[in-house]
Amino acid sequence: MNTAAHPRLSLNQATVKHATLSEVITVARSAGIGALGTWREPVHDVGLDEAARMVSGSGLRISSHCRGGFFTAPEGSARRAAMDDNRRAIEETATLAQAGAPGSRAVLVLVAGGLPDDSTDLASARGRVADALDELVAEASAAGVQLAIEPLHPMYAADRAVVSTLGQALDLSQPFDPATVGVVVDSFHVWWDPELFDAVARAGHQHRIASYQVSDWLTPIAADALLSRGVMGDGHIDFGPLSAAVDAAGYTGDVEVEVFNQDVWDAPAAATVARVVDAFAEHVPVADVRPVLG
Amino acid sequence: MNTAAHPRLSLNQATVKHATLSEVITVARSAGIGALGTWREPVHDVGLDEAARMVSGSGLRISSHCRGGFFTAPEGSARRAAMDDNRRAIEETATLAQAGAPGSRAVLVLVAGGLPDDSTDLASARGRVADALDELVAEASAAGVQLAIEPLHPMYAADRAVVSTLGQALDLSQPFDPATVGVVVDSFHVWWDPELFDAVARAGHQHRIASYQVSDWLTPIAADALLSRGVMGDGHIDFGPLSAAVDAAGYTGDVEVEVFNQDVWDAPAAATVARVVDAFAEHVPVADVRPVLG
Repeated sequence: MNTAAHPRLSLNQATVKHATLSEVITVARSAGIGALGTWREPVHDVGLDEAARMVSGSGLRISSHCRGGFFTAPEGSARRAAMDDNRRAIEETATLAQAGAPGSRAVLVLVAGGLPDDSTDLASARGRVADALDELVAEASAAGVQLAIEPLHPMYAADRAVVSTLGQALDLSQPFDPATVGVVVDSFHVWWDPELFDAVARAGHQHRIASYQVSDWLTPIAADALLSRGVMGDGHIDFGPLSAAVDAAGYTGDVEVEVFNQDVWDAPAAATVARVVDAFAEHVPVADVRPVLG
Repeated sequence: MNTAAHPRLSLNQATVKHATLSEVITVARSAGIGALGTWREPVHDVGLDEAARMVSGSGLRISSHCRGGFFTAPEGSARRAAMDDNRRAIEETATLAQAGAPGSRAVLVLVAGGLPDDSTDLASARGRVADALDELVAEASAAGVQLAIEPLHPMYAADRAVVSTLGQALDLSQPFDPATVGVVVDSFHVWWDPELFDAVARAGHQHRIASYQVSDWLTPIAADALLSRGVMGDGHIDFGPLSAAVDAAGYTGDVEVEVFNQDVWDAPAAATVARVVDAFAEHVPVADVRPVLG
């Protein structure tokens, strides 16, 4: 297989979870991939300064940094710790995007967090997401970072993310400048939504699409539901209409492949990346244009 | 525990999956429960005529019959077989509701079905649900049966039900008389939906709430995702706001407890029913009025 990597394909680091940042950069470059979606843990493993040097030397664009959020706890020390952690994540995002090649985007992906322990008060948890955004936007704006609210599949609403649809994410973003608060369109999380295409169009109209991420929906759902994603083409999602909608909405940035899957993680990183390059070419028909410089 | 059963509590037969119809009737009556939601398989086990005699002799109301649907296949023999099966289900629903005590409702719960094998064409599958309703309404109306579209949790969109939200179910019902096409509000399937309360109000305004079913959302999701439901109070759903919304929407019918859960199924039926009676009293604050006679 010698498929050329799509010019907008970005390798989200979670797809090769067990690789170090150095290894990820090597396999991405070897495969002709132009961009990387970083994760905080492997960046922390080498330290932010060293990570920025590695990114700078790699010639790769940075498409997003994963992830902040988890700010549904009520006021108190746990919430303060979460907010401080989000401030560090904003700083990391700005630093890595500045180190990346032209076309890098300073996008911090935010996963809202689930219901606090022993709480069934979904409305209040959702309200605290809005409060957290309100608290963080000034710092994000000053750092030139776009906070990107990622709606997660409703099966994670209790324990991981109380933001469950793209429409809800857009509603949460509404009070804020789109340059500072956007949304993530992740195929795995939103493919089922009867309102999806309306929401993508609305997101585009508001210039709020911060990231388009792709992976497939497998059945049966994995025993660990977090690991139920597949490489594109292995599941039930038709990436054609969604990619066309994201294109039509004016999103011209990189498209991240983000697959959480134990079998994928158990494979050698280079083999996974080769597979991702092929699957993207075959199944994800986004416009074949280089991203507009950021 | 000697909690009196709530006057609107209905025992959905799936909660005591391994009990025969005769056993279900016995345990429901012993627990002071006034209504039953029947399933097709245990009715078929004794035959429809005998089932109707048993229901008639029981003094129980019938709150719904589960289930028809599974009509997303493209035109051909599989689709014709599914439509014929739905016609039989309509007849069963009418017969059982006539056999039930006053206040029985001739409601046939419809689960849409998933994507056909090897198809990723969600829009077409959804279109075929609309086609199926269009084909069945005349017979349902003639039989005095209300077809009740049940939106299933989006985690089942690929393999079980392409109808994923209450709003979508209402859109599908829109062309038809509410007496013939309604919707099911099942807490497990819809609790996460940011548009839920608007959709419940809309459903009430249109007189389309055919059934309110309750069970809880457990985490982690069970290895078999179909069996991830819990008894109310064991999971993450707040039944207060939802029950208030269903009350405010004008629904005065029975409220079915429908729990698919291996541990619940493994318990003796009488113990499960006692547990259900207690949990309903503690966690499901629907108005304490007898259902309006149907």
